Amino acid sequence: MSFMAPRLDAEIIAIGTELLVGGRSDSNSLFLAEELGKLGIAVRFKSVVGDERQDIVTAIHTAVKRAHVIIMTGGLGPTVDDCTREAVAHATGHRLGRRKEALEGMTARLAQWGRIPNRAQLRQAMIPSGATVLKNPIGSAPGFCLTWKKALIVSLPGVPREMEEMMWQEVVPLLRVATESSGRLSRSPIDRQVFHTFGLAETDVDAKLTGLIPKGTPVDLGMLASPMGVLVSLTTKGNQSAPERNRDLLQKLAQDVRSRLSDWLFAEGRDTMEEVVGRELTKRRLMLAVAESCTGGLISHRLTQVAGSSAYMDRGAVCYSNRAKTEMLGVPTELIARHGAVSKEVAASMACGIRERAHVSVGLSVTGIAGPGGGAETKPVGLVYIGLDDGIGRPITREFRFHGDRNVIKQRSSQAALDLLRRWLLDKEAK
Amino acid sequence: MSFMAPRLDAEIIAIGTELLVGGRSDSNSLFLAEELGKLGIAVRFKSVVGDERQDIVTAIHTAVKRAHVIIMTGGLGPTVDDCTREAVAHATGHRLGRRKEALEGMTARLAQWGRIPNRAQLRQAMIPSGATVLKNPIGSAPGFCLTWKKALIVSLPGVPREMEEMMWQEVVPLLRVATESSGRLSRSPIDRQVFHTFGLAETDVDAKLTGLIPKGTPVDLGMLASPMGVLVSLTTKGNQSAPERNRDLLQKLAQDVRSRLSDWLFAEGRDTMEEVVGRELTKRRLMLAVAESCTGGLISHRLTQVAGSSAYMDRGAVCYSNRAKTEMLGVPTELIARHGAVSKEVAASMACGIRERAHVSVGLSVTGIAGPGGGAETKPVGLVYIGLDDGIGRPITREFRFHGDRNVIKQRSSQAALDLLRRWLLDKEAK
Repeated sequence: MSFMAPRLDAEIIAIGTELLVGGRSDSNSLFLAEELGKLGIAVRFKSVVGDERQDIVTAIHTAVKRAHVIIMTGGLGPTVDDCTREAVAHATGHRLGRRKEALEGMTARLAQWGRIPNRAQLRQAMIPSGATVLKNPIGSAPGFCLTWKKALIVSLPGVPREMEEMMWQEVVPLLRVATESSGRLSRSPIDRQVFHTFGLAETDVDAKLTGLIPKGTPVDLGMLASPMGVLVSLTTKGNQSAPERNRDLLQKLAQDVRSRLSDWLFAEGRDTMEEVVGRELTKRRLMLAVAESCTGGLISHRLTQVAGSSAYMDRGAVCYSNRAKTEMLGVPTELIARHGAVSKEVAASMACGIRERAHVSVGLSVTGIAGPGGGAETKPVGLVYIGLDDGIGRPITREFRFHGDRNVIKQRSSQAALDLLRRWLLDKEAK
Repeated sequence: MSFMAPRLDAEIIAIGTELLVGGRSDSNSLFLAEELGKLGIAVRFKSVVGDERQDIVTAIHTAVKRAHVIIMTGGLGPTVDDCTREAVAHATGHRLGRRKEALEGMTARLAQWGRIPNRAQLRQAMIPSGATVLKNPIGSAPGFCLTWKKALIVSLPGVPREMEEMMWQEVVPLLRVATESSGRLSRSPIDRQVFHTFGLAETDVDAKLTGLIPKGTPVDLGMLASPMGVLVSLTTKGNQSAPERNRDLLQKLAQDVRSRLSDWLFAEGRDTMEEVVGRELTKRRLMLAVAESCTGGLISHRLTQVAGSSAYMDRGAVCYSNRAKTEMLGVPTELIARHGAVSKEVAASMACGIRERAHVSVGLSVTGIAGPGGGAETKPVGLVYIGLDDGIGRPITREFRFHGDRNVIKQRSSQAALDLLRRWLLDKEAK
């Protein structure tokens, strides 16, 4: 190893030409970083390589110089371009051979689906000599792990569900034993706390957090802006001598972050805006209906991503045409003629219309110009109105002027609408 | 350099702790790979590192050993965690200094928004000595590039729009000069062709493509399965001596792929299912309306991601409750009572109902159980019915039994519904 830190470091190698040049998102690393973090293992590098044996070999050789634990995902499938098995064998000087336990596990799995392994799938039972087979309880491709040059190399499928189950059932227990027996920081998990804000620019969030972390404090502050808002993270650097003190420090800083960000903070950790809104609706036993124009169904889609959302989500209307706004929501044609479909008056009428027709407690609406066409000088692309109506007070409306392409404007609009609903719900509680 | 291939190789270094452990997708690499590919430069590695100066230095040192062109994205912002400038200076032995042209560009940009640079933003004008400043025509952070150890190191912001504009306006012209003056493959672009299929398993696609590429042919076959289908790619390895022959070969293979995949193939390149369906609807001057239960608005959201979709998308109804199905679509309560909301009868009635109420040519519907709750032995999670009605023939219905979590089932259901519509549209043409 090129360094021997008191902390164990990990590197993730994601394999697949599509991940490299196809812009496919690698959703596995969040999960892996979390699970490794709980064991006190920090992910410091991630490498992405295509389905090229020699490039995978190079990535492995680079990784063993800077990481103690190497988790490889992908390239274990049955098709011709899957060559992780060959690459690991080649990189570490092992031979590939068909392994009985790998074949049995795969055969049993396929039998459940009434199939027998075809010739291509038999390749999946080829495992480097000296490696331990890792069972795949979900799919057909087994994984494996081996120690080489003092680094533990683990190879898992790229399919998220399979990778996750194998990580839990096979890899985590193995890493726990390894970290405990080596005496390394088994009691010093890396703690990380994530905060989600909406409505502030990145520099404004930065300004609010100035001076948060005193010099020399072993905590890193991170920030990332996206159409969905600015994400803030606190990560302990790990402190083997006093893990408890680290955690207390993080809690104290987290409390400070919360008070500095106040109600711009809408969620923490893996919690999402749609989950927060869903919980608040449930708590108040309120039913919601949504009327969307420029967001085109995105708000309903997001709300119904949450399991159990049928308890508070009654219906949604995607009114792309003006006629649909009138027929589905009862928006008067004269109102559209006078103020235009993109106006605060129509937003209010849409929110009111969907609430009444659905016989629910709250109606939420969006109308705007997502672009790239349809803009005018007085009503440019990015102009968006959001409406909320509860049938008690007067409808609430908000005007926004967003920048970005069609997709960004849809995303921001959906987030702004859900945030208005969240603020309204919290305000309702306060009264 | 550790190798001197006749081809120029590139490495992308994406910087940001959130990209490393936050599971944020790095959408920049597809764009960069495409632009570099047009110049004959292949992306072979991508590294992701957090906002740690020393780790960025390590990534740069690794990259210069295996790539001729290194494109770094991210870490150029004004906040404390942005340390790419420092890392590049440190890695290459340069000093950081405030650069006049960087400061001027930034000041001019901020002035457009009526702001002056704050203290944090002034950090963005710090550039390594010996580097060339790259103008940012969209945002405030300038980029820069420098040559070190025979590799060209380019540093760009992580914000996609800024990165893209700077790549086009500043980096591509520079790379074109560099490749042409070095006599390296300026006439040998890497060609890549991508095919999207739906409805076949990965092993079935693999079987259909067996023997496609004769041994020794300089073309790679790639495959990637996702809930949206199986993606197939053909990539030329690059051939300096006969670029024309390479392109002809790729065209011939592409033709073979098309005939082997027949109507399972729904799109090529960056084309999407929703764009294909939109074009086919436009061609036939048909208007569409969609009724969704378990997909919760995802189909409408996808259709309206396409600019100009208002020409063929009239409206969508998200009928999460049974009452909404009856009120919004006129599905008889007795029908729901007799067959259940998840049944082919209700799917047909939903498609017919939305078509009639919207006065359009085609109605498309989905009803199913996305889970994790709500499943039963006879109607398990993943059971989905899709309906299509044109008011002329009898409604078409299809039954699916999908596997996966709630999100995967929603994705697959939306894809299956749009694919049914696509097949119906193509069939209509043939008659």
